[in-house]
Amino acid sequence: MNTIELNGPIIKSLLDIDFYKFTMGQVVFNKYRHIPVVYGFTNRTKSVLLGQHISEAELREQLDHARTLRFGNSELHYLRGTNEYQERMFSEDYLQFLKHLQLPEYELTYHQGGAFTLRFPGKWSEAIYWETIALSIVNELYYRSLLKKMTRFERDAVLATGVVLLESKVDRLLTQPQITFSEFGTRRRFSRAWQYYVADVMAHELPGQMIGSSNTYIAMEQNLLPIGTSAHEMYMVMSGVGQNTDEAILASHNQTLQDWWEQYGWGLSIALTDTYGTDFFFRDMTAEQAAAWKGLRQDSGDPIAFGEKAIAFYEGHGINPKDKLIIFSDGLDIDKIIEIHHRFDGRIKTSFGWGTNLTNDLGLKPLSLVVKAIESNGRPTVKLSDNMAKATGPADQVARFKRVFGHVVAQAFACTY
Amino acid sequence: MNTIELNGPIIKSLLDIDFYKFTMGQVVFNKYRHIPVVYGFTNRTKSVLLGQHISEAELREQLDHARTLRFGNSELHYLRGTNEYQERMFSEDYLQFLKHLQLPEYELTYHQGGAFTLRFPGKWSEAIYWETIALSIVNELYYRSLLKKMTRFERDAVLATGVVLLESKVDRLLTQPQITFSEFGTRRRFSRAWQYYVADVMAHELPGQMIGSSNTYIAMEQNLLPIGTSAHEMYMVMSGVGQNTDEAILASHNQTLQDWWEQYGWGLSIALTDTYGTDFFFRDMTAEQAAAWKGLRQDSGDPIAFGEKAIAFYEGHGINPKDKLIIFSDGLDIDKIIEIHHRFDGRIKTSFGWGTNLTNDLGLKPLSLVVKAIESNGRPTVKLSDNMAKATGPADQVARFKRVFGHVVAQAFACTY
Repeated sequence: MNTIELNGPIIKSLLDIDFYKFTMGQVVFNKYRHIPVVYGFTNRTKSVLLGQHISEAELREQLDHARTLRFGNSELHYLRGTNEYQERMFSEDYLQFLKHLQLPEYELTYHQGGAFTLRFPGKWSEAIYWETIALSIVNELYYRSLLKKMTRFERDAVLATGVVLLESKVDRLLTQPQITFSEFGTRRRFSRAWQYYVADVMAHELPGQMIGSSNTYIAMEQNLLPIGTSAHEMYMVMSGVGQNTDEAILASHNQTLQDWWEQYGWGLSIALTDTYGTDFFFRDMTAEQAAAWKGLRQDSGDPIAFGEKAIAFYEGHGINPKDKLIIFSDGLDIDKIIEIHHRFDGRIKTSFGWGTNLTNDLGLKPLSLVVKAIESNGRPTVKLSDNMAKATGPADQVARFKRVFGHVVAQAFACTY
Repeated sequence: MNTIELNGPIIKSLLDIDFYKFTMGQVVFNKYRHIPVVYGFTNRTKSVLLGQHISEAELREQLDHARTLRFGNSELHYLRGTNEYQERMFSEDYLQFLKHLQLPEYELTYHQGGAFTLRFPGKWSEAIYWETIALSIVNELYYRSLLKKMTRFERDAVLATGVVLLESKVDRLLTQPQITFSEFGTRRRFSRAWQYYVADVMAHELPGQMIGSSNTYIAMEQNLLPIGTSAHEMYMVMSGVGQNTDEAILASHNQTLQDWWEQYGWGLSIALTDTYGTDFFFRDMTAEQAAAWKGLRQDSGDPIAFGEKAIAFYEGHGINPKDKLIIFSDGLDIDKIIEIHHRFDGRIKTSFGWGTNLTNDLGLKPLSLVVKAIESNGRPTVKLSDNMAKATGPADQVARFKRVFGHVVAQAFACTY
């Protein structure tokens, strides 16, 4: 078993980042590289005041260290060799851009009482790479702070609890050999070492079922499929790229899908559905897109209800849902995975992107941290989601976007950052 | 956390042995050194055929390795410096004897079908040191054989299960700060490394409660009290030292107590009560001995019934039981320890010698192995115990000893070796 690292750099490679940062990054590099954006860090776990656990000095030290990193030759070789979705999917222009990339400057302010503001302004094509790196750093510093207060044995017991809980997941999945899943836990991981351990165990204990990792470094190390398509930020930033009219904002959603298809075609054509609510998504995706795209990713709301809607959506367009795939990735645990799988078995293909509960289940409460694109081209962004607790944006803009996207919910609130 | 050792020598020091081997060993050296004895290994866990897990070659290799060991100077220094029970309790004569000691030859025969016979004949003063060494070796070879069939992660999960179960023991004991206990787990340990880890954790997490270890090396390493007085073998071998008459056999029990007192006085005066049954013991121990001796060790039968009998015994002799101590050491777990403690709290002092469940609780079934003195001076020995499953000796001799010691049980059977 790996040992716990209480000190030292958290990010050691720029490949220790979710693969979708590259798939999105290339589209951004090709079409929107100079769009100014701001990413903002938010701690949704209000009961934990992170600044009381993490000092400004150590947070700066880790962020500064990440800024010293560059892509190495072998790392670029790995990306250049990626052919799982499309031959030579990353262009040489883009790889040369990565070769010279340095993470842009960050803005960090500590406030009285234990809160801090952490923002990443910059060109979209450069600031985009901070997200999972910043999340990995804040998470691990937080858990290091808890571990440092423990005795050596208490730390052993945390790791042991993690192993025992991991064993129960392995044992359950061994009884369900038809279920496949990927590790999606970079952003909420307990620590780098623990995520790597979990991925290593899953890859070796469940070789036919654990098919990929969202973490590019882990995918490389474990010979797994690097998994990732696009995130909410793609739609959110796109809402600010065009004119500031309702029509332009409405059109930006489908433009996002069109840009994606243009870049990657069928290979990476999994659409994230909930940025402005799934009901809107199913109105916005055309029959041609529905027929062409490989499938959908579900990331908020009720997964069973979503799956039923998706099946009805495809059938409504005369498309056989059995030819389509849903990747479920919202707050999964082993019970949900098994339930969802059996619910849709034989009706639509399913796979699972298993995050927090896979890489941060050691008996300590996980944090709900996000880094979201909060400004695009000088305008605030909005996310509505299928779960109002995940909605972001200033209240007036949330109201506007709800109107624009025909979003109907019984109860809504906006979460300002 | 320590790592699992799948290969290499199991016994690395002749101090990796239960302390009572030295306390008994000195009495034997002084008074009975030339008595010929035979110790026999028995696996009471009939469902496990050890020879199917442990090859003759590897068992010989480990036993042969133990025979290459000698007491080092620092190890003899530690014994020489032992003053917890009596100033300079080990005489220079005895220490010089240990300095030149080599474990005597063993007899090992593998049989068809997975059983083997393992015996240690020799002078009592030399063969006495094999017991816990042989048990530690067979146990660890067995668990190594199970671990070698596992994946790396399955091995991690075994260790993790052990840590989680250990944590639950620590947590329970933290709620019971008045309970003290010692580690008595050498003979049934999962492995040397695991026993050492458990002792280390307990000593650091429960410093006022974990007071000692039966393992001399661990006591030395962890600055704990080395714990040990005498075992059944003392009474059993003594039954063969004198004439082969009922009277001499009957008298040998109290002679054992007298020899012990003569050697160590009050310091080590904890009497093991169940060799021929506790009812006999309480008839045999005189009022003067009851008043003088520090207390009793309970090792079979019902601990609550035993405690009540002991209190009644002391009160019957006009002795305040509050001045006496019972060490409970039979098949303890945390629930039993807490129950026994509360039952006798304020009535008689209690402490606990926690064995198998402390050092071999990792989710795998522990084995019940013993090495017992089976012959003394050419005659078979007998143990009756308060638990007929623990009775040993040829049937005719068991019947004889039951008659001699006035043993009354509803149902009895003899276990031949």
